[in-house]
Amino acid sequence: MPARPRRADAWKDAGQSRDEQFAAKRAALIRKAARAFSARGFYNTSLDDIAAELGVTKPALYYYVKNKEEILYACHLISNELGAQAMNFAESLPGSGLDRVVALARRYVELLTGEFGASAVLMEFDALQPENKKTIVAGRNRFDRRFRALIAKGVEDGSIRKVDPKLTVFFFMGSVNWMTRWFRSDGAFSGQEMADRFSDYLRESIKVRSDQA
Amino acid sequence: MPARPRRADAWKDAGQSRDEQFAAKRAALIRKAARAFSARGFYNTSLDDIAAELGVTKPALYYYVKNKEEILYACHLISNELGAQAMNFAESLPGSGLDRVVALARRYVELLTGEFGASAVLMEFDALQPENKKTIVAGRNRFDRRFRALIAKGVEDGSIRKVDPKLTVFFFMGSVNWMTRWFRSDGAFSGQEMADRFSDYLRESIKVRSDQA
Repeated sequence: MPARPRRADAWKDAGQSRDEQFAAKRAALIRKAARAFSARGFYNTSLDDIAAELGVTKPALYYYVKNKEEILYACHLISNELGAQAMNFAESLPGSGLDRVVALARRYVELLTGEFGASAVLMEFDALQPENKKTIVAGRNRFDRRFRALIAKGVEDGSIRKVDPKLTVFFFMGSVNWMTRWFRSDGAFSGQEMADRFSDYLRESIKVRSDQA
Repeated sequence: MPARPRRADAWKDAGQSRDEQFAAKRAALIRKAARAFSARGFYNTSLDDIAAELGVTKPALYYYVKNKEEILYACHLISNELGAQAMNFAESLPGSGLDRVVALARRYVELLTGEFGASAVLMEFDALQPENKKTIVAGRNRFDRRFRALIAKGVEDGSIRKVDPKLTVFFFMGSVNWMTRWFRSDGAFSGQEMADRFSDYLRESIKVRSDQA
């Protein structure tokens, strides 16, 4: 198969369609913007700042996103998607309710601290457009319901002590959400260590104890 | 002792000095403003909204606070003060490191969900003036250092398993900080229940297990 002719704009030549190229460039931009927002705060960072940080002109930036809210919404959509991925994985596993709850926690923290970098911009909800906020909250609620159901199964099968599922989800997700504020990929703990340790705290805090069995 | 003469502005007559009256009125206003910010988001709530919510004129409001940031700063100062109170209490107790860590957690959640209402405005840092931010961060760092020291003592005395004190503080304080987002005094759990259950999760997650001793 002959090589395709090379053009001046080499990035368009990765064998992707125009739509795929656009989506890939936009995704890379969203990730970098999320990092900039995390460092300086959403309200303190303008699209001009983002353009400067990314080394592009503002019109070039506007080609991919029309405003800051669109970037914020994209970050929340990614976060919800990662949650759903982790949940699908955990629900597909054999084992006790406790094992699956711990697997969910580990996988979610792995994904969140991974490529996406667990951006602190995820703490910012109030700036979302009302209809986008609704979509994000609905996604979070689905995740929370499935998380609570896994915990309830663990209580039923005797692997988890009699904790309140809703409160347990709030407790653990608080730690994870707060992590987006302080976690740095180049910090004292790797994403994998965070996943191991946070899921271990969760396991210990809810598992049935031998002295209670 | 004869009754003091009554004036038209009866609230000035509670036997308090002018400064005490000012401070008390200001504190009540800060609490109410914190609730309004929590409900609508700090950036979405104007001083006009606050004045309307409190049923006072804007000039009357300006008599007590000069801008939104001053209210936000006051809320953070109160939160730091409650943390220091809880810490002083825990450090003064006899018992193992674990007992004192759990006492700290319980007392802090009690205080935070108490009169102050655990306002979600505490999640907002970026809007603080740089010098105020410095003061708040310094207070939080002092609290974190003392919290880590209590955990380290528990690891030393064998009541706490070999956890990383810094990560444990981040884990637990994440849950507590996030709680300010969803906790309502009139919700499913009282402040006292929150204090009991959150400190119980913490205890279970870090205590030495009989099968590990």
